[in-house]
Amino acid sequence: MTTTNPELEYGFPTEEFEMRVERAQRKMSSHELDAIVLTVPPNFRYFSGFESQFWESPTRPWFIVVPREGSPVAVVPEIGAPQLEETWIEEIHTWPAPRPEDDGVSLLSSVLSDVPRKHGRVGMELGREHSLRMPVEDLESVRNSLSGVEIVNGSPCIWEIRMVKTDREVDRIRHICEIVSDAYANVPTLISAGDSEREACRKLRIDILRRGADSVPFLPGISGPGGVPQIVCGPRDRVIQDGDILFFDSGSTFDGYFSDFDRNYAVGDVSDETKRAQEAVWQATEAGIQAAVVGAKTDDLHRVMGKVLEEAGSLGNNVGRFGHGLGMQLTEPPSNMPGDGTVIKAGMVLTIEPGMEYAPGKMIVHEENLVVTEDGPVLLTKRAPRELPIIG
Amino acid sequence: MTTTNPELEYGFPTEEFEMRVERAQRKMSSHELDAIVLTVPPNFRYFSGFESQFWESPTRPWFIVVPREGSPVAVVPEIGAPQLEETWIEEIHTWPAPRPEDDGVSLLSSVLSDVPRKHGRVGMELGREHSLRMPVEDLESVRNSLSGVEIVNGSPCIWEIRMVKTDREVDRIRHICEIVSDAYANVPTLISAGDSEREACRKLRIDILRRGADSVPFLPGISGPGGVPQIVCGPRDRVIQDGDILFFDSGSTFDGYFSDFDRNYAVGDVSDETKRAQEAVWQATEAGIQAAVVGAKTDDLHRVMGKVLEEAGSLGNNVGRFGHGLGMQLTEPPSNMPGDGTVIKAGMVLTIEPGMEYAPGKMIVHEENLVVTEDGPVLLTKRAPRELPIIG
Repeated sequence: MTTTNPELEYGFPTEEFEMRVERAQRKMSSHELDAIVLTVPPNFRYFSGFESQFWESPTRPWFIVVPREGSPVAVVPEIGAPQLEETWIEEIHTWPAPRPEDDGVSLLSSVLSDVPRKHGRVGMELGREHSLRMPVEDLESVRNSLSGVEIVNGSPCIWEIRMVKTDREVDRIRHICEIVSDAYANVPTLISAGDSEREACRKLRIDILRRGADSVPFLPGISGPGGVPQIVCGPRDRVIQDGDILFFDSGSTFDGYFSDFDRNYAVGDVSDETKRAQEAVWQATEAGIQAAVVGAKTDDLHRVMGKVLEEAGSLGNNVGRFGHGLGMQLTEPPSNMPGDGTVIKAGMVLTIEPGMEYAPGKMIVHEENLVVTEDGPVLLTKRAPRELPIIG
Repeated sequence: MTTTNPELEYGFPTEEFEMRVERAQRKMSSHELDAIVLTVPPNFRYFSGFESQFWESPTRPWFIVVPREGSPVAVVPEIGAPQLEETWIEEIHTWPAPRPEDDGVSLLSSVLSDVPRKHGRVGMELGREHSLRMPVEDLESVRNSLSGVEIVNGSPCIWEIRMVKTDREVDRIRHICEIVSDAYANVPTLISAGDSEREACRKLRIDILRRGADSVPFLPGISGPGGVPQIVCGPRDRVIQDGDILFFDSGSTFDGYFSDFDRNYAVGDVSDETKRAQEAVWQATEAGIQAAVVGAKTDDLHRVMGKVLEEAGSLGNNVGRFGHGLGMQLTEPPSNMPGDGTVIKAGMVLTIEPGMEYAPGKMIVHEENLVVTEDGPVLLTKRAPRELPIIG
């Protein structure tokens, strides 16, 4: 029950948060925002360091206001105050929650009214890849109670801030990637033909936890003859059989940071056609990794991976992209796809995730995680073997 | 690696969903809604039976439209179609996602335009205990593209539907409550003084999974001398010591349904004052259980529990309520608190969760889960022992 890197302690020093806020404030200036308001747990945690599994309960909203100048202000239910006081956040406003007739609405409005004004605009999580964590009706109440301050879409600004990771963030992603890499390498000794998909997932989930993950919020395990029909649902009661491809994907966490990568296994013998598809997707992954350099675009990553897959006779796939950003969420912007247009910067953590349907109903999807550095891409996962590992 | 009730199979027959839709349609009529639109995973799953861990990724919205007459219609990203086709849902519309410039917006608008109109109102998850799972800006686009149809707050209608559970739903909640009850009973053999809170949580999480839970999304473990300072954050690196109260809360799942109850343990010797607080909270739980009868109000539950705690010298607590609804989410309406006003009906599943601070920084909180029947409350958890179990 130890982590693979016992030197890596939980939590961040105050200077980390000061650095994040300073960077955020520069971005806010360029987006002409007087403040951003965060409600989504990873955003709240990003600026406060506050962690709570209690966010699993949707009853009470939590807010953190990061002004363009000065320190962040928390507006939270009373139940959260004792522990929030132990973070670096100094200004904390609370209300007795739940209070459905006014769950933080008037308190948040009052804090926002006090934010120094220059642009008259406050950004909230209203756009791409954000589901605001408060009732929409309450947002409307906040909007109506403010005068001289407009609530606008802050998502582009927030994602600009979070897309580039700090060294300490990368350390945590690397750590969880290593834990899961080791668990994946152990799968052939853990799982065998005759297990159901459910049993296989249960065994792997326990193994990942044993190795030091805090949680495993995402672990589909899917099997099918020569490939899988889809990659988003499962496990099912299906029993794993000779000739199957067994596919695991996993989003596990350490100290609030995710890994997100998959692995494929051959159950006994698989056909030469399947092996050729495996080789093609492995090569596409290679191409994607090599292309993840500063200055390239996410569109380029898609193009180089797509080229390898097309030449191998891909029938396409329904995933819509070949990877994405990774950090405090299983998936984050950008998307490796045509039209995304994100220019890759040092510090971005990306998944490289090519996949193809090589015959009707038979998909092979690979995935690795990397950080982009000035010196090129650096893998955070332990690279999948070129040939499919075999499960007996 | 077996479940405690191997007869309980995953999934529901079609008649279960037909019954849910029929009931929903009656409620929609009384709320004067032509349709409800569901985006939040438990709501989507409630009407479709579709399960996916993929919802961990916030990139793509998913929609299910339940009209006042006729069958539900799904509007989903292409990636979800193969598996959704295996559910009872027959009408499925897909778009190639992600497509940030139009992620389901025009498709959802077109489906809503085709819904037969009587009231000109469509309900969405805009109110209490709902965080709409789509960008607010996209909601605004849908609103603007509709003519003659108003999008209104459908939350009260949706919660009316989901608050009363079917027998099959209760079976699943009972099953996961039994699994976790057995794991809690095993804690004194699993965990000992000298373990850190993190190690203790890791051991318990693995034990709950071994016993047949699908996942453990919520498992704070908190320790403190004679009681805990708060109940929402943790585990920490703190080492469990003699004289501590060790508190676990847990939300574990089976087939999409949650348990949510806690347990307290004495680490070695604890003071008589702590034992008296334990007795008071245990008695308050008894009172809460007995009061959970058809026709009572959630306010009454709070009152009877509060009376016991006040008489025992409670300094109050910051939780704001003494329990809540339970089902496909860790917490659901109603709230056992003054002013909630929900009249208790047969089929409601509730947590009974009294707690008090009996000395500054020392809280004791208990919790049990029950289903209300015409014949009175029936516990789903195995009742906590009256005296604190001891950890060596």
